[in-house]
Amino acid sequence: MTVDIRVNGARLWDSIMQMAQIGATANGGSHRLTLSDEDKVARDLFAIWCAEAGLTLSVDEMGDMFARRAGAKEDQPAVGMGSHLDTQPYGGRFDGVFGVLAGLEVIRTLNDHGINTRTALEVVNWTNEEGARFAPAMLASGVYGGVFDRDWAQSRVAVDSGATVLDELKRIGYHGDLPVVDHDFSAFFECHIEQGPILDDGGVSVGVVDAAQGFRWYDVSLEGFAQHTGSTPMAGRRNALLGMAKVVQAVDDIAHEHAPLARGTVGSQIEVGPGSRNVIPGRVDFTVDMRHPSAETLSAMDSALRAVCAEAASDIGLELSLEQISYAAPVAFDESCVAAVKRACERLKVSHQYITSGAGHDACYVAARVPTAMLFAPCKDGISHHESESAEPEDLEAVCNVLLHAALDVAGVAS
Amino acid sequence: MTVDIRVNGARLWDSIMQMAQIGATANGGSHRLTLSDEDKVARDLFAIWCAEAGLTLSVDEMGDMFARRAGAKEDQPAVGMGSHLDTQPYGGRFDGVFGVLAGLEVIRTLNDHGINTRTALEVVNWTNEEGARFAPAMLASGVYGGVFDRDWAQSRVAVDSGATVLDELKRIGYHGDLPVVDHDFSAFFECHIEQGPILDDGGVSVGVVDAAQGFRWYDVSLEGFAQHTGSTPMAGRRNALLGMAKVVQAVDDIAHEHAPLARGTVGSQIEVGPGSRNVIPGRVDFTVDMRHPSAETLSAMDSALRAVCAEAASDIGLELSLEQISYAAPVAFDESCVAAVKRACERLKVSHQYITSGAGHDACYVAARVPTAMLFAPCKDGISHHESESAEPEDLEAVCNVLLHAALDVAGVAS
Repeated sequence: MTVDIRVNGARLWDSIMQMAQIGATANGGSHRLTLSDEDKVARDLFAIWCAEAGLTLSVDEMGDMFARRAGAKEDQPAVGMGSHLDTQPYGGRFDGVFGVLAGLEVIRTLNDHGINTRTALEVVNWTNEEGARFAPAMLASGVYGGVFDRDWAQSRVAVDSGATVLDELKRIGYHGDLPVVDHDFSAFFECHIEQGPILDDGGVSVGVVDAAQGFRWYDVSLEGFAQHTGSTPMAGRRNALLGMAKVVQAVDDIAHEHAPLARGTVGSQIEVGPGSRNVIPGRVDFTVDMRHPSAETLSAMDSALRAVCAEAASDIGLELSLEQISYAAPVAFDESCVAAVKRACERLKVSHQYITSGAGHDACYVAARVPTAMLFAPCKDGISHHESESAEPEDLEAVCNVLLHAALDVAGVAS
Repeated sequence: MTVDIRVNGARLWDSIMQMAQIGATANGGSHRLTLSDEDKVARDLFAIWCAEAGLTLSVDEMGDMFARRAGAKEDQPAVGMGSHLDTQPYGGRFDGVFGVLAGLEVIRTLNDHGINTRTALEVVNWTNEEGARFAPAMLASGVYGGVFDRDWAQSRVAVDSGATVLDELKRIGYHGDLPVVDHDFSAFFECHIEQGPILDDGGVSVGVVDAAQGFRWYDVSLEGFAQHTGSTPMAGRRNALLGMAKVVQAVDDIAHEHAPLARGTVGSQIEVGPGSRNVIPGRVDFTVDMRHPSAETLSAMDSALRAVCAEAASDIGLELSLEQISYAAPVAFDESCVAAVKRACERLKVSHQYITSGAGHDACYVAARVPTAMLFAPCKDGISHHESESAEPEDLEAVCNVLLHAALDVAGVAS
């Protein structure tokens, strides 16, 4: 049985705009770090909306929120739809939020039309997708997917306070009883803005995401010697910053050598010591982020990075510490879920194309346990992780309609 | 009339070690930032020692401390001896402190022997030589030398608290009545550790400093665009950190091109935003420090720096802000003062050599108003601005003896 209904795009947009007010920044973005006071308020608002939609909320030990709309066959696992409500520092209004509220809008639409599904539907808010306050990113979905150990994940420490994930879960009242792994889905769909320019450049409304790049994250330290900038001859210096400069340039070069799919970046989380303009930098701590959809190429990039860091340290007489702190293998999403998204696009006659995700998403880890696919919406100029992140209401509505019909396809409509 | 006396090296060393206990660090250095609580304690201790030595203390509007031992001819200006008691963040025990306490040891020695001088002697502690907490460096001696305006200097803001120099002078009780410019000297001598390796490498006890390098300090900002590290193609990026990396390398190259006298450093005071490992650096703020004993070469280095910054900004699409915040012209010290130091070295039969100061010192600004010279002591491996900064007691004693005899030479012994 197929149903010819559509989501309420204005309601979806209004909800996103209301959520954006929590931690709103002066420049039109949102600053809502994982397990902060703002995150608690966002979770509370989401819980209220879920209750208003008649959903039953459960929270697991990592603070993941599952809002359930029962199906006709309650002995079968639900179809999940969701993403995350945390943001980057001074980030955008759509990254993550759209995916959670698109799921909620699907539920609201089904409520409007009194349509029951065969299997249950659940809207999900995963904890700490961003990884900005607690590294690594996609922490809770990683525990769900079996990538991270629960205790290890709960013991991650906030960069701003020294508090652990578990401390902060308890502080804001979102340390639930449900074991993370005791929650099954028959399928999982995550809507997200693309965070890249491909759909926006092509004027395409929906990205049917069939794969995601793998990535490797590193913590790097270079230790030299802090000396006076005036009286220390150039020849005798052990300038840690000069070593970092070589690595910054090399990481950019490595990514260009594997164009167009590779990405390589020294991130914006850097510490240089001892912190005086007339002292040669004695120590630098920085991060490296390498991505590619092929595991083999990613390994080659890894080798090149290690060689460059060792060479810079050796040339300048620095002590090098290089640790890979996170690895996400490239992901091929579930063929039947991707096909359901594609069929929904065709049925709705919305412009669409296959696309590979450049960013990591909760869906990438969920995919390790559950048949999963993603749907991308265009975002203006491909800009994300920035306050000026922007998306068009009609594009988000189009993607949400595709989600509605893909989810109905998999969950089934009760007679 | 010449006198054949010597300073008490053990007393000098003990005083330096006592002062080092104020803000002592775990690794054997001192952390005593300008106008901090630790600076106040150091000033109070110095004032007590001065009172014990029978000196009369006056404090000027910049917090400079002048401890006077009257001479036979009080209508003539004093011979000044001094340096500074503030330190770099986690700096060494000798930088600055040695110069102040060497002056005090000269006074104590004269007291021991009951010797009166023709003109008065003064021991001086200049405020904020280091420039780490309040930029620029050599702030109060710069006001004294006419390089900086008093009101501008008093309004400099602390990097750690937002308080001004004037606020902090008042808070710690060292905002004196004496106008900075109303204090004259007939000559000024500053003892200091070399902060470079030349004397230590050569096994020479005393550096007769006849000149000082000029320097230029810059504040540089590069602004690009903060975007997602995974989904932003390499080609479209405006990575501010990549721009900084090019400048870091270029500043090092520029200094090497003007070897062996030039110095060029991007200092260890750097901010990178927005501060997340998976966001491309959207903005970097850093400092540049260029030095050379020739004003012409320093100008050429300035031009090269500006060209490199403009090119890096243009290539990557960054907005550049480059401001020279401090300029110290190369200094040729006073011939008669330098000669007095040289004569004292010869009389005492201590190994010595002429040397150019690579670092800026209070004496460089004082020299704009008063006949001035400096005396350098070797420091181990040339290491300074670091907790492991080290000097030998016998070297400090030798330099202090040279100071005693040079000061007596200029001040004269009363019949």
